[in-house]
Amino acid sequence: MDLTRAAAADLDAADPLAAFRDRFVIADDALLYLDGNSLGRLPRDTPAALARVVEEEWGRGLVGSWSSWIGRATEVGDVLAAGVLGARPGEVLIGDSTSVDLYKLLVAGADARPGRDVLVCCADDFPTDRYLVAGVAAARGMSVRQVAADIDEGLDLDVLAAALDERVAVVVLSAVAYRSGALPDLAAVTRLVHDAGALVLWDLSHAAGAVPLELTAIGADLAVGCTYKYLNGGPGAPAFLYVRRELQEQLRQPIWGWFGQRDQFAMGQAYDPAPGIERFAVGTPPVPGMAAVEVGARLVAEAGVDRLAAKGRALTDLVVALADGWLAPHGVALASPRDAARRGSHVSLAHPQAWQVTQALLDRGVVPDFRTPDRVRLGPAPLYSRFVDVWEAMDRFRDVLAEGAHERYPAERARVT
Amino acid sequence: MDLTRAAAADLDAADPLAAFRDRFVIADDALLYLDGNSLGRLPRDTPAALARVVEEEWGRGLVGSWSSWIGRATEVGDVLAAGVLGARPGEVLIGDSTSVDLYKLLVAGADARPGRDVLVCCADDFPTDRYLVAGVAAARGMSVRQVAADIDEGLDLDVLAAALDERVAVVVLSAVAYRSGALPDLAAVTRLVHDAGALVLWDLSHAAGAVPLELTAIGADLAVGCTYKYLNGGPGAPAFLYVRRELQEQLRQPIWGWFGQRDQFAMGQAYDPAPGIERFAVGTPPVPGMAAVEVGARLVAEAGVDRLAAKGRALTDLVVALADGWLAPHGVALASPRDAARRGSHVSLAHPQAWQVTQALLDRGVVPDFRTPDRVRLGPAPLYSRFVDVWEAMDRFRDVLAEGAHERYPAERARVT
Repeated sequence: MDLTRAAAADLDAADPLAAFRDRFVIADDALLYLDGNSLGRLPRDTPAALARVVEEEWGRGLVGSWSSWIGRATEVGDVLAAGVLGARPGEVLIGDSTSVDLYKLLVAGADARPGRDVLVCCADDFPTDRYLVAGVAAARGMSVRQVAADIDEGLDLDVLAAALDERVAVVVLSAVAYRSGALPDLAAVTRLVHDAGALVLWDLSHAAGAVPLELTAIGADLAVGCTYKYLNGGPGAPAFLYVRRELQEQLRQPIWGWFGQRDQFAMGQAYDPAPGIERFAVGTPPVPGMAAVEVGARLVAEAGVDRLAAKGRALTDLVVALADGWLAPHGVALASPRDAARRGSHVSLAHPQAWQVTQALLDRGVVPDFRTPDRVRLGPAPLYSRFVDVWEAMDRFRDVLAEGAHERYPAERARVT
Repeated sequence: MDLTRAAAADLDAADPLAAFRDRFVIADDALLYLDGNSLGRLPRDTPAALARVVEEEWGRGLVGSWSSWIGRATEVGDVLAAGVLGARPGEVLIGDSTSVDLYKLLVAGADARPGRDVLVCCADDFPTDRYLVAGVAAARGMSVRQVAADIDEGLDLDVLAAALDERVAVVVLSAVAYRSGALPDLAAVTRLVHDAGALVLWDLSHAAGAVPLELTAIGADLAVGCTYKYLNGGPGAPAFLYVRRELQEQLRQPIWGWFGQRDQFAMGQAYDPAPGIERFAVGTPPVPGMAAVEVGARLVAEAGVDRLAAKGRALTDLVVALADGWLAPHGVALASPRDAARRGSHVSLAHPQAWQVTQALLDRGVVPDFRTPDRVRLGPAPLYSRFVDVWEAMDRFRDVLAEGAHERYPAERARVT
């Protein structure tokens, strides 16, 4: 690969998604923001969408606006289903946090497999996934089987297969690993889990908007995901959950709130879950937050997940090539799958002083993030990151290491997501 | 009581809180909005506060803003604690919906009373409270005792006392009844529950910002509440939860998300709940929503809950007097406690065609809401409702009934909160 800046600029010139950068607020064009996989940028349309909800619908329409708000969680869910997740109408709901949604579906799934007493997760999965599995298992007297995974290469299907048997109720896995970006064969994993008679619950937080997802086609049972990374819904934006249509009537989630009730405003005595995806709702949904999610989801849908994923592979291929060419001599090693087809849209680089390197990069206008134990994670977002941004960021990375600039920073841990 | 419009105008002229109306967006000054107990109005400062979070902190500050956002759930909780709830710093947390927060504290409370197998709630409580109690009891093999309550007069303490014994783990009660506005003696109820060795979990949704709450002084154990009614946080704004300081270390909530983890960004293997109120957090908190809650909470604190409650009693006294004088001849009966000291800031009026009356009022620029089975609920909000608004609304109510205008509306049920 040609490692010159001119070559990166050529890639930008040929990028069919280049114009989408103008759809985002770029307050400082010189800032090299490679953390869209942690917090995506602000779409230009979002402030107006929020103002419409807040100033017109709430401020002027007052309580009467609930006649339109009441359906918003499924309407925005349908936008995500069609444009991002490869799911059918009525299979996706917006609301709650990813963690709460994961809890709801994990308990619902475990209840739907009576007599099975094991939950499976990945030993290297994102903390909230592991903690939630542990908590649900503890409360129900179930066991947890943590499947070992290479923190760089991700899940090995043979290792997963060895953990599956007739005791397993639900398998929780991230579609894209939060640290390495490793992307297993989602269809093959789903088949493996189904062969064991269990349900699979995908965490799509690092996948939605970054890689093509075909939840219907692969036969996915359950999924959750956050909307503030590649979907650009903003800090703490409401999450989404997916339940395969054919499973919905069999499942009940454990938090019996009034928004999950059939004929909610009859305020009847007994809880009777609503038909369809709305039975997985709990409390009053965050209306402004859903409007922000809709803007982000529509942008991803407009760009197209296939094109986004292709650009994501090209961007991360450039990171890998530059890391090999420039950073390896300074002790940096790739900590993600080398094959772009087995990655999401971010990669991690290992360095013994990754925390200090991260601080030095921040001070030079590059925003990566640090991940334990010794990783610098770089997430160029295909909607707005340019190839020259990656080139410039890696150039500064090289300078930091060459100058030993990171040595000046104290060795302590980050406090950002 | 003098029932003239001039007398109502005199009350406004003497109202020490009158100026607070200007702190809200009043798009249509002629609209008689008496549903602030369902969805409070938009504070004038809220759009700017949201723009600051969205456009500056998110749009410009990007992921780096998490260094300030990370503490926001407890900081805004402390504002509520001091200004609204009569609680101490570190006892209140913002996040999730009221229903999810209720679930978390209900399970945590039940776990903290091992060997006790009964949950108590009120048969006439708001649906989400009853459903959640039923769901938690079903999942744990516990029994539910529903305490009968008069739907107009609220809870009778002798009836509650008869339901309490050594089998009861947690008692869930609303501080202000959602339909009648009935307000029991919170301190006396808390003592009764404690005498039985159980924990009390207050739902403050219709109380916070409407009546003085002294959670510390009355020895309250647990509480939750919504922020979109008298706290004016907006549709689906994040809820709050309260856990008495002395109980925090004994309690664990069931949804083990990463925001409840000690030393969260170490991303350690085992879930280890954070010290203090943060152990009741779950997922990434809704940052813009918390900013809106802060604006609303500060307005209530500035006005003062004692003054707000006094005005609320005066406003609802006027409703009652006008209902007695004007509406009783048309078959309307008070469906709330007559003694203002035993009410929150809303009252209900019973009429056999309450649904049709509600529709007729909406068409005449009065916004009440309908509540099953036959109630028109009127919630003048002390921060922005005027005595003349109440007078005008009741005048139109009288006209509707005198003309039989409500007879033209079909008898079907509402679909608004």
